Amino acid sequence: MSHPTLSPADLLKDLNWRYATKAFDPTKTTPAETWKALEESLVLTPSSCGLQPWKFIVITDKDLKAKLKPHAWNQSQVTDCSHFVVFAGKTSIDEAYIDQFLARMIEMRGGSIDALKGYRGMMTGLLLEGPVSKAIPEWSARQTYIALGQFMAATAMLGVDACPMEGFVPAEFDKILGLPAKGFASVVCAAAGYRSGDDKYATLPKVRFNSDEMLERI
Amino acid sequence: MSHPTLSPADLLKDLNWRYATKAFDPTKTTPAETWKALEESLVLTPSSCGLQPWKFIVITDKDLKAKLKPHAWNQSQVTDCSHFVVFAGKTSIDEAYIDQFLARMIEMRGGSIDALKGYRGMMTGLLLEGPVSKAIPEWSARQTYIALGQFMAATAMLGVDACPMEGFVPAEFDKILGLPAKGFASVVCAAAGYRSGDDKYATLPKVRFNSDEMLERI
Repeated sequence: MSHPTLSPADLLKDLNWRYATKAFDPTKTTPAETWKALEESLVLTPSSCGLQPWKFIVITDKDLKAKLKPHAWNQSQVTDCSHFVVFAGKTSIDEAYIDQFLARMIEMRGGSIDALKGYRGMMTGLLLEGPVSKAIPEWSARQTYIALGQFMAATAMLGVDACPMEGFVPAEFDKILGLPAKGFASVVCAAAGYRSGDDKYATLPKVRFNSDEMLERI
Repeated sequence: MSHPTLSPADLLKDLNWRYATKAFDPTKTTPAETWKALEESLVLTPSSCGLQPWKFIVITDKDLKAKLKPHAWNQSQVTDCSHFVVFAGKTSIDEAYIDQFLARMIEMRGGSIDALKGYRGMMTGLLLEGPVSKAIPEWSARQTYIALGQFMAATAMLGVDACPMEGFVPAEFDKILGLPAKGFASVVCAAAGYRSGDDKYATLPKVRFNSDEMLERI
């Protein structure tokens, strides 16, 4: 497979083009092929042990967006974006889930559950017995942030605007989306679509501390 | 600025090319221009309120890598990769940090601290008074995972192999890197460089649950 497909300069051009879009153009919709790739980029996100302890709720329904908005500080991004994504984390992990994952692994790669015994033991040790077992929702939440990071990069590469959003009331979102019954809790959101022509934030310089303060090279 | 620079198909090609590299070729180094762009992609990561509560420690020093390795389950990625990155989160936030950020904002965008009063109040309310104030290390940790996600995507776009790593002892890393004295704690790591010709994981199919289980479309 030929690589890379992007030059370092183009990568930086895309990442500098990106900004947390405050005003979306409500008349614009992300094309189906582009959106399909962005959904696939969510699914392809790396995760701890490969366990994918998440669900991505992709919302385009106008009524549902309007219902969520008051629980997201009434931010217009919720209703004006093309696709609104709620990143939800699994609230518990059990042996059944680990075995479901291993079954999927065998389905994709062949092999036997016996050959995966060591891997299974590592996962049950980490997630059902070790310190992480006491904090599964937080462990899952962190994984959803990997997906958020990959999604922010992927949208920028495809020229889709996005806004990551922590400003919402998770308990209200959970209730509206019926997440607890499915074993999930909302963690973070992202609105995606196209910037409005009059979003004053679009043209402001990025605010970053000096690279030399953020990076330590040893 | 022209967009997009990547087609949906190329995005997916790159993300499918990526895998958690288990064996790096220790003779290969990421070219300086490519690495510079990857460092810049770290710095450009979006964060809560834009506050960048992190530090990225980029390690190429052989002795230091060797010192860290036993505290990372002796994984060969630590020493064989080209660049080893430790993602560290700020362990506390105070008014001085918020004001430092606002001063940087004024430096980059102009304006006055008076015009930013509302923004300042939102941040102090959220981080110094609200529920998040009781859990700053976790709030920071989540932000570093956004950087990890963006980094995983960026490396893939530039044809650089990477391995995200949670398997290490943060307290030992902190001690070796002198992070507590600087107000940081190690959260997660990533090794970057080039896959070894004999990494059996390179050619295995990806294991992902069905998209329709991971995604809910409403």
